[in-house]
Amino acid sequence: MAVGDVTMPQMHVVKGVKIGSTEAYVRYPNRRDLVIFEFAEGSNVAGVFTQNAFCAAPVHVSKAHLAEGNPRYLVINTGNANAGTGPTGLKNAQDTCAKLAELAGVNSFEVLPFSTGVIGEQLPMERLLAGLQPALNSVQDAAWSDAASGIMTTDTVPKGASEQFELDGMTYTMTGISKGAGMIRPNMATMLSFVATDAPIRRDLVQKLLKTTVEHSFNRITIDGDTSTNDSCIFVATGQAGGAEITSESDVRYAKVLEVLARVMNRLAQLIVRDGEGATKFITVAVEGGANTQECCDIAYSIAHSPLVKTALFASDPNWGRILAAIGYAGVKDLDVSKIQVWLDDVQICKDGGAAEDYTEEAGARVMAQTEITIRVDLGRGQAKDTVYTCDLSYDYVKINADYRS
Amino acid sequence: MAVGDVTMPQMHVVKGVKIGSTEAYVRYPNRRDLVIFEFAEGSNVAGVFTQNAFCAAPVHVSKAHLAEGNPRYLVINTGNANAGTGPTGLKNAQDTCAKLAELAGVNSFEVLPFSTGVIGEQLPMERLLAGLQPALNSVQDAAWSDAASGIMTTDTVPKGASEQFELDGMTYTMTGISKGAGMIRPNMATMLSFVATDAPIRRDLVQKLLKTTVEHSFNRITIDGDTSTNDSCIFVATGQAGGAEITSESDVRYAKVLEVLARVMNRLAQLIVRDGEGATKFITVAVEGGANTQECCDIAYSIAHSPLVKTALFASDPNWGRILAAIGYAGVKDLDVSKIQVWLDDVQICKDGGAAEDYTEEAGARVMAQTEITIRVDLGRGQAKDTVYTCDLSYDYVKINADYRS
Repeated sequence: MAVGDVTMPQMHVVKGVKIGSTEAYVRYPNRRDLVIFEFAEGSNVAGVFTQNAFCAAPVHVSKAHLAEGNPRYLVINTGNANAGTGPTGLKNAQDTCAKLAELAGVNSFEVLPFSTGVIGEQLPMERLLAGLQPALNSVQDAAWSDAASGIMTTDTVPKGASEQFELDGMTYTMTGISKGAGMIRPNMATMLSFVATDAPIRRDLVQKLLKTTVEHSFNRITIDGDTSTNDSCIFVATGQAGGAEITSESDVRYAKVLEVLARVMNRLAQLIVRDGEGATKFITVAVEGGANTQECCDIAYSIAHSPLVKTALFASDPNWGRILAAIGYAGVKDLDVSKIQVWLDDVQICKDGGAAEDYTEEAGARVMAQTEITIRVDLGRGQAKDTVYTCDLSYDYVKINADYRS
Repeated sequence: MAVGDVTMPQMHVVKGVKIGSTEAYVRYPNRRDLVIFEFAEGSNVAGVFTQNAFCAAPVHVSKAHLAEGNPRYLVINTGNANAGTGPTGLKNAQDTCAKLAELAGVNSFEVLPFSTGVIGEQLPMERLLAGLQPALNSVQDAAWSDAASGIMTTDTVPKGASEQFELDGMTYTMTGISKGAGMIRPNMATMLSFVATDAPIRRDLVQKLLKTTVEHSFNRITIDGDTSTNDSCIFVATGQAGGAEITSESDVRYAKVLEVLARVMNRLAQLIVRDGEGATKFITVAVEGGANTQECCDIAYSIAHSPLVKTALFASDPNWGRILAAIGYAGVKDLDVSKIQVWLDDVQICKDGGAAEDYTEEAGARVMAQTEITIRVDLGRGQAKDTVYTCDLSYDYVKINADYRS
């Protein structure tokens, strides 16, 4: 069960984006496991991808195609990640693009492929290729929710965010979807997220907006510390809602788009954590007072990855010694533990490196019983800070991952 | 339940080492939770300790005392780690040493303190100090097995190793114990291990022997990636079995001692993994063909820490894509995945970065059903290699750590 509010909002249509889907039987029957995005001509598209050395075939192809120009189509399948599949996997990803390009009358490089699911098996190409025409036939502009459901794997809820905003008196839309519940510790972006706006933005700024916002959204979540082979995040600006193109970062409209995009990306990233495999709690780990951002990030991830901290959170046990231990082994040089303060929400548990004198087990237990908890750490050695989002480690995480595939 | 053969061997007496214990009620009644080691005068002692920045009070005190000279006594309690306890914790560790020194008629620095158990609570000093005299009264030379039981926490079995060996026609003994089942990813040594020999070895060589052997034993095991605040490993050479002192690494007897110590340390370290919290399988991760040892070590730990790999091992599911993903995100620069080979024991699952052609699910499932499995990775870019030992991640790991303290 997902943690807290994960409801799909009203998914506003983005002018210039159409979505179609079909049941291609990639792995399981009776599910819309093949999704196509169609972007209006002139759309500017940016992407960020996993840094896993074993990155999947579709990631290789998407990167190569993006380098050639703006894509007009995305084709996404679930049920099979097309990763660890060697030259055959690469050819399958290319053939998928070529076939869709032929059906849609565009160049092959104008199609980006995405896959998610089991690693190490070849795609069922016959069924996949047969699904392209029906998926293409079904494209329409109001299918964001269908797409969010179509790209799910072990996700228990579809994930979406949508906002409308004004620039110079004109109304624009920013809508996005994401998926992912396990093998989540994105290093560039998570598998998979697609965000679109109909605002007009020059291509290099689309890429810049994506890189800036992904750093503090998808690149700051972890469920199990396992960086996927398929992480991909795409941001498209179609420009179809009109207005002059944004061509400068000093344009006040750029700042506004950045603000909206950051909010949408954060929501999409946090939805993945809320739907983390077996998650019963949503945890914010906020580290401040650091000498630099990297050490705050390292300590936040050390806490967020500790199986002992995560099981204590699952048990609602204020076993804060495990948090101290995780801070201590994060590898930060010359850490003076006598300057460290730690809070669970408003309850200070550690003062100057030892137990806070007025701390009581009752106060700690009260916070730990919540489904949303902030672990806040002050290192007392600077002004830098960073925040990471994670979930607890429950029986169900083991169950889901011991049963998956079988 | 511990995995594989974990039987205590015949624990040979080490001349010059006596051990006593008592029920001090540190945390739970009716268990021998206070252990004392007594070393003969002239014993040379070496220690290695956790690199966790939040290292426990007894670790601070032990390091300081070791720097002053050779200790005559070790005092070890379970039930309370005396970590995250600030200045009071430091004073409690010092007071424990002072009291035992007074009772035994030695200097305070000749006592090293060790604690294991819950982090963040103060030691029950009245009960602890009251236990010192009865523990001291009980010292005898054949109590190694009692000590192995006395230092247990979540361990399900006491852990020991013992060998007799000959140097220049004289018979010597090497005997040791260890404990630990969770918060295990030692970075210097694990909490706790004590190894003794009655061979005569100069003090600097005792330290050198310890450092050399700990690197490929305790520093190459992981259960949950959580480096403890209390890890300590002590090696003592009493010299009480006679013979000329070993004063050079080129002495052939040094090589022999190194060989025996490495075997004893490996056994003690692997016993900890075999008794890992919730462990149902013992896993060897052997990485070879690396450009240097560090990258082999990094990849081995990346696999050994992956919750997805560990749950697949628990489920006996040959989901080898998760192994590839863990190799890929280990952060090794310029990794050419097309040169990578992976085996589960004798079954090649990955050839040149993709699925091995002759691999079958049946063959993978056969190996995964074993309780002892070797994951072997060849990086194909050099001659370096390294090996890490770990266990799987089961429901019981979550259960043990969600229940601990309650």
